[in-house]
Amino acid sequence: MGKIYRFGNGKADGGAELKNLLGGKGANLAEMAKIGVPVPPGFTLTTEMCNFYTEFGEEALKDSIWNEIKDGISEVEDILGKKFGDSKNPLLFSVRSGARQSMPGMMDTVLNLGLNDEIVEGLAAITNNPRFAWDSYRRFIQMYGDVVLGMTPESKEDLNPFENIIDNYKKELKIKTDLDFDVQNLRILVDRFKNIISERMGIEFPQDPYEQLWLAILAVFRSWMNDRAISYRAIEGIPSNWGTAVNIQSMVYGNTGSDSATGVAFTRNAATGENYFNGEFLINAQGEDVVAGVRTPWQITKKESIEWAIRNNISMEERERSQPSLEELMPEVYKELYKIQTILEDHYKDMQDMEFTVENRKLWLLQTRTGKRTGMAMIKIAMDLYNENMINSEEVIKRIKLSKIDELLHPVFDTEKINVDVLTRGLPAAPGAAVGQVVFFADEVEKYEKAILVRLETSPEDINGMNLAQGFLTVRGGMTSHAAVVARGMGKCCIAGAGEIVIDYKKRIFRVKDKVFKEGDFLSLDGSTGMVYEGKLITKAPKLDENFHQILEIADKLARMEVRANADTPKDAKKAIEFGAKGIGLCRTEHMFFEDDKIKAMREMILAPDTGGREKALAKMLPLQRDDFIGIFEVMKEKPVTIRLLDPPLHEFLPHTVEKQEELAHEIHVPAGKIREAVEHLKESNPMLGHRGCRLGITYPEITVMQTRAIIEAALEVHSKGIDVYPEIMVPLVGKVEEYRLQKQLILDTITKVFEEKKNSVRYKIGTMIEVPRAALTADKIALETEFFSFGTNDLTQMTFGYSRDDTGTFLPTYLKQQVLEVDPFKVIDTEGVGQLMDIASTKGRSVNKDLEIGICGEHGGEPHSIKFVNSLGFDYVSCSPYRVPVARLAAAKAEIDKEN
Amino acid sequence: MGKIYRFGNGKADGGAELKNLLGGKGANLAEMAKIGVPVPPGFTLTTEMCNFYTEFGEEALKDSIWNEIKDGISEVEDILGKKFGDSKNPLLFSVRSGARQSMPGMMDTVLNLGLNDEIVEGLAAITNNPRFAWDSYRRFIQMYGDVVLGMTPESKEDLNPFENIIDNYKKELKIKTDLDFDVQNLRILVDRFKNIISERMGIEFPQDPYEQLWLAILAVFRSWMNDRAISYRAIEGIPSNWGTAVNIQSMVYGNTGSDSATGVAFTRNAATGENYFNGEFLINAQGEDVVAGVRTPWQITKKESIEWAIRNNISMEERERSQPSLEELMPEVYKELYKIQTILEDHYKDMQDMEFTVENRKLWLLQTRTGKRTGMAMIKIAMDLYNENMINSEEVIKRIKLSKIDELLHPVFDTEKINVDVLTRGLPAAPGAAVGQVVFFADEVEKYEKAILVRLETSPEDINGMNLAQGFLTVRGGMTSHAAVVARGMGKCCIAGAGEIVIDYKKRIFRVKDKVFKEGDFLSLDGSTGMVYEGKLITKAPKLDENFHQILEIADKLARMEVRANADTPKDAKKAIEFGAKGIGLCRTEHMFFEDDKIKAMREMILAPDTGGREKALAKMLPLQRDDFIGIFEVMKEKPVTIRLLDPPLHEFLPHTVEKQEELAHEIHVPAGKIREAVEHLKESNPMLGHRGCRLGITYPEITVMQTRAIIEAALEVHSKGIDVYPEIMVPLVGKVEEYRLQKQLILDTITKVFEEKKNSVRYKIGTMIEVPRAALTADKIALETEFFSFGTNDLTQMTFGYSRDDTGTFLPTYLKQQVLEVDPFKVIDTEGVGQLMDIASTKGRSVNKDLEIGICGEHGGEPHSIKFVNSLGFDYVSCSPYRVPVARLAAAKAEIDKEN
Repeated sequence: MGKIYRFGNGKADGGAELKNLLGGKGANLAEMAKIGVPVPPGFTLTTEMCNFYTEFGEEALKDSIWNEIKDGISEVEDILGKKFGDSKNPLLFSVRSGARQSMPGMMDTVLNLGLNDEIVEGLAAITNNPRFAWDSYRRFIQMYGDVVLGMTPESKEDLNPFENIIDNYKKELKIKTDLDFDVQNLRILVDRFKNIISERMGIEFPQDPYEQLWLAILAVFRSWMNDRAISYRAIEGIPSNWGTAVNIQSMVYGNTGSDSATGVAFTRNAATGENYFNGEFLINAQGEDVVAGVRTPWQITKKESIEWAIRNNISMEERERSQPSLEELMPEVYKELYKIQTILEDHYKDMQDMEFTVENRKLWLLQTRTGKRTGMAMIKIAMDLYNENMINSEEVIKRIKLSKIDELLHPVFDTEKINVDVLTRGLPAAPGAAVGQVVFFADEVEKYEKAILVRLETSPEDINGMNLAQGFLTVRGGMTSHAAVVARGMGKCCIAGAGEIVIDYKKRIFRVKDKVFKEGDFLSLDGSTGMVYEGKLITKAPKLDENFHQILEIADKLARMEVRANADTPKDAKKAIEFGAKGIGLCRTEHMFFEDDKIKAMREMILAPDTGGREKALAKMLPLQRDDFIGIFEVMKEKPVTIRLLDPPLHEFLPHTVEKQEELAHEIHVPAGKIREAVEHLKESNPMLGHRGCRLGITYPEITVMQTRAIIEAALEVHSKGIDVYPEIMVPLVGKVEEYRLQKQLILDTITKVFEEKKNSVRYKIGTMIEVPRAALTADKIALETEFFSFGTNDLTQMTFGYSRDDTGTFLPTYLKQQVLEVDPFKVIDTEGVGQLMDIASTKGRSVNKDLEIGICGEHGGEPHSIKFVNSLGFDYVSCSPYRVPVARLAAAKAEIDKEN
Repeated sequence: MGKIYRFGNGKADGGAELKNLLGGKGANLAEMAKIGVPVPPGFTLTTEMCNFYTEFGEEALKDSIWNEIKDGISEVEDILGKKFGDSKNPLLFSVRSGARQSMPGMMDTVLNLGLNDEIVEGLAAITNNPRFAWDSYRRFIQMYGDVVLGMTPESKEDLNPFENIIDNYKKELKIKTDLDFDVQNLRILVDRFKNIISERMGIEFPQDPYEQLWLAILAVFRSWMNDRAISYRAIEGIPSNWGTAVNIQSMVYGNTGSDSATGVAFTRNAATGENYFNGEFLINAQGEDVVAGVRTPWQITKKESIEWAIRNNISMEERERSQPSLEELMPEVYKELYKIQTILEDHYKDMQDMEFTVENRKLWLLQTRTGKRTGMAMIKIAMDLYNENMINSEEVIKRIKLSKIDELLHPVFDTEKINVDVLTRGLPAAPGAAVGQVVFFADEVEKYEKAILVRLETSPEDINGMNLAQGFLTVRGGMTSHAAVVARGMGKCCIAGAGEIVIDYKKRIFRVKDKVFKEGDFLSLDGSTGMVYEGKLITKAPKLDENFHQILEIADKLARMEVRANADTPKDAKKAIEFGAKGIGLCRTEHMFFEDDKIKAMREMILAPDTGGREKALAKMLPLQRDDFIGIFEVMKEKPVTIRLLDPPLHEFLPHTVEKQEELAHEIHVPAGKIREAVEHLKESNPMLGHRGCRLGITYPEITVMQTRAIIEAALEVHSKGIDVYPEIMVPLVGKVEEYRLQKQLILDTITKVFEEKKNSVRYKIGTMIEVPRAALTADKIALETEFFSFGTNDLTQMTFGYSRDDTGTFLPTYLKQQVLEVDPFKVIDTEGVGQLMDIASTKGRSVNKDLEIGICGEHGGEPHSIKFVNSLGFDYVSCSPYRVPVARLAAAKAEIDKEN
């Protein structure tokens, strides 16, 4: 293998298959070159070189690679007939990073490399466009200063030093935009840029193109380890040893005049997934102008241009004059671009996000990549590609990013309840609803529980704060601006280009027309419509579309595990069915007891002095609880319903304040002192490890008897209506088989009795939770006696780590910060420790009982990494909250697909 | 194998090696017959027959065995020339139980079986002793009525029904003792006994000897399952499937007149272990008269008879007249008995407890068995036998019952502080001191935290209550009475035969001379002297004798594991050294912080608002803590001292009542509100699973730094005196290797710094507790980084079971009662669950680190079953409280011996 991989002129050393070595961008450039897409020629330094540099440093890298780089340059010179460093016929390069996985804006790029004081004059002469030449030089110095030489802003309220010079000079000249600078102005800007570099950095701007190139390559490799790249990788889970490649590509120019342009195009709509070509471009501009969102770009297709005008209340005449489409402006270029996008999508079999440049009406593709998209678009595109026979069902599921499913299930505003006018509007850059308090700086987002970040534009430095915000509202930028791209990636709401807004960063306020908003004020954003509302709006759950249901059905066919829901009420059960749950994996009976009548009876039971008193109170609870179960069985029909017997310590049911105790005393005619006494008596040092779970059922067997009776009577009643109900009775917190055996016998005796009384029977199962380490360790004993195991990973995590979930606040943040923990083990199963116990338990359990049904009903049951893990252990089902069921169904399918591959 | 095993006439079917099949008594009778000891001939029904009966019932048993029994009877008839059921020359039998392990008094015995209305006259004629014949018949009916027919007392204050008849009849006749009944009286008693049987049971007393025998055999088998036998087995850990054998042995009579006697003899002194022959006997009596303690027996040897007289202030003349020794009364018999006891001890190589009967000056040995003994005697006898070359060192250790070691270590009264006169005195039946409240009925012992059971005599029904009492005081009975035997077996204090005491069970009082004591009054018993004191005396720790030290040294040579002590102060450390600890396995630094100055600084640290404040407070603690460590190092010298870094949650150090908070506020000049706030802030839902252990050291690294500095500075200071100290720094509550790694680095950095500052160094180790299940599961990661593991089995048990040690009171009693748990897992390691984790951890740990030192420092470290278990896992040491060290040393040796065998 070489250290550099060349591409261009219809051929390439590499291809798409070398993504890990060449990075996404480099591999795609090679691939595009091979399939005949016009890409400016160049070459790629591999990701291995990045690691080599990190490990061995600059000198070793130069010894290893410099000659190959010079050969690469020669080859490009031969293809284009230009020469690097030759003022008569100059060849310029872009130098870009390109990692295995796209990290938009995280690392640095340098354009127009190869210009110097002499060559800029040559470029002016050859192109007969001195303004372009000097503007390119101005841009080059600015970028080079920022990226390679490391010029930084002096304070955060300021723009960066070069932008300051530009802004001050504009004021001096009383002009509005960069386009108004003439050649002389640009020359002066170049001087001022060089001066500030000299002043601040103590060096002269380098004039040798080869020196420029070498330093730029190093800067890109270094940028792999910059703070924002490290942050991004931490969020996205990208290992640092992947490294980045460097793409050195000959420059083409979208800014040589009005016959030139630059833009970004998508083969399908990235927001909705609709199958039509679309994109944005700018005339006489370079690529970063589009991405940075400093100028609001025009639409590529006529159709979208018209829609834009309608949305913005602009007449068609005005549109054609001020913002025509590429289709209208350059029909030939448009036609070629359209053909190329078809080729690319057919080739990659996925929606493509392409960067292109038109240099004097010659189209160049700068890169193509799989387009980022909203959750809704992801679903639609995957199903459309499936229906178009471009991808198979496994591929459909692979295309689904689970982190995006949430956004489909997130609330939207209840449109009927919007009682305020629209404050202002922008581009619907990322869908969903967000409500929060205004904050102007990304590093201050954490001041508010729910924050809306309001910015002129966002930049990669903001990534950490953006991750914490509810949504973003930007004054500038389009659908492909930084804020928009990041928001879609994070599944957050974003409204971009809301130009009516005027921000005063220093005063920490913004104005819309005559209204003033300050930091901390509430805003509501509708990222699906672009509407901004004042104050807090009411949200409602979204409706799932048909595509999504189809994908979930595909997932169910591919998955081995079933998905059940944790549901405690008929209402929850309905939601579970709606989201496609195959049963209830956890019905917590104690939640029922918190309702009015039931808590009264419950309290009477707790306060009873003896078994007789408890039985009397339990007799009152029986019909109430039976009704709960009837409601659930009627919804779930023949699907299994796993009902956990009473689990929490009894004191949770008693009032803890003096007022509430007196109230209760009055209500149930018991002296308040007695209630206080009971509360005191039931107090525990460590209730988590105290008198709860089956320990209650063993010390007070009458509770188990009542609950079993309620379940079985309810089952028989619904069964008598012709529904083949399927209760599964679950004993919690078992640590020794003897505990389970006692409870099981009690349950069996009660079932037999109720069957005899009612002269009827139903099918049922009896099983246990595995949530105590000891139960996991002795699962081979327990499995002999039980029909199912349901892993309660919340408690299992608590006991395996020795962490009380309620008390981790004092040390967990430190643990996460110091990387003692990579992730909160209550969110993602700790496979090494807790998972080891689960492995031991399921292996031992199955070794003695092949028919043992195994599931998980802790919070982890809806978390994709955890689902993948339990799938690898051969579990039969996961159970999670109803809203997580769709994600769990997809995750279960993915887990099975990943296993096969 | 036959179903019955014959013995007698110098030969036997079985022998000592068949103890499991024949029971201890049967095997010994066979063995004795074989070595030429005169035992009355008979045969043994095997323990297998007991299980056969339990499983298949009476009919099946009779079908299986009846013919063999009849054959056995014929053979005895042939040997003795008597005939069973023949009134002319009657053969009578005793029927006794005999299990694999002696269960004194637990099961039933019937003597004189084979008598009826006709045969009694024949026996009277042949022996020419009608009184003996009728007394035997009277005794037979009484025992048969109790044991076989199941006559029971009507209320507990009454004696049993037969005893009532006797007592009433004595009053009627105005006589004092049973010996005063003449033949006519005995005939009337026999009539009255037969009448009450007929009245109460509705049956006539059976006249057919074969029927009598069969029913008696069944009664003995049934008695294996009676309540008191089940209780006893539960306490002693005897499985019920062992069963009991039945020994049917021809009767010989100690009650045929003044040429007859019966007694119990020991080859050595059962209380002190001294090597001289001793025992007690009664003239003209049957065996149960000695055991029941109804009559106070005479001494066998002249020496002891004289000592008895001196102790009781009786003149030698009076002694010779009223209570001469066997040695004096029947010198020939005594000589033969003396010879036999020598044969038996040489044969069995252990102190023997023999029952004998003299029938018309012919000596018969009824049984021999390994004699029960006090802890002190156990030690002395084992060492004496070792020194006499009768047993080897392994056998010495095997002879040590660990449950008896406690009694050697138990407090005795501080004789200098006895400020009350002796109330009364009795026999020093079982040594040690006991202080408690008087209670008169065994089933009421639990009314008092510490109770002294005061009885005329005790009986097997009392076994449960006796197990709970501190000690026993009986009015009747000798050293071999039930109370005395049981007390020595339990390692409790007992004074027997304190005849001055007059008990009124109905009024629940007793009198000594003119003093009256009621239930609940305090008494102090000195079981080593026989002195009874009024009120509560002060106790002091016993001194260990030379024999015990020698045995501990033998144990150390045989043990593989070392024994360390848990010691937090120089005083504890001294005690540890005294008891032979090889180091400190756990020094809990937090205990030091509870002292005056230190707790003040500790509180300042906790209340400090920031790291700076904490460091300031810690600086004050440093010299104080350093001094603690200097004191400990000076005591322990070159032995390892394992010091655990701060472990408990910080709120444990703050005052929790308002008064104490205000006091503290005043003391350290901080507003009380702030202290209240801090207490509130530090409050945790489950402190056991909260901010403690290394979680403190990671969030507040300055604590770890200060403690490490204190340890190392102290070590260097003591080292500079020429002592090669050996600190081992232990990080608590590690669950992930990352936690350990962070703490280890901090410790290493601090050590390096202190070494540099002091320009000196000491050897040290750094290691961790294994007390969190996750640590055990990932021990292969942790062991790579650490030098030792110390298992904290208290916490490991808490987390593995999910039991908070402070909160188990609500369900643990039920769990033990319902046999969910066989034993409290905080007392004895749960080998199945917790032990499995320990096995995983030590195996994984050693697999990656062969030099890993492994120990245990939880409460289980001093518990023999747990020591045996950790020895089987290959641990290097156990650590326990100093007072448990001797037991642990012996247990460690036993564990290793058991492993080899």
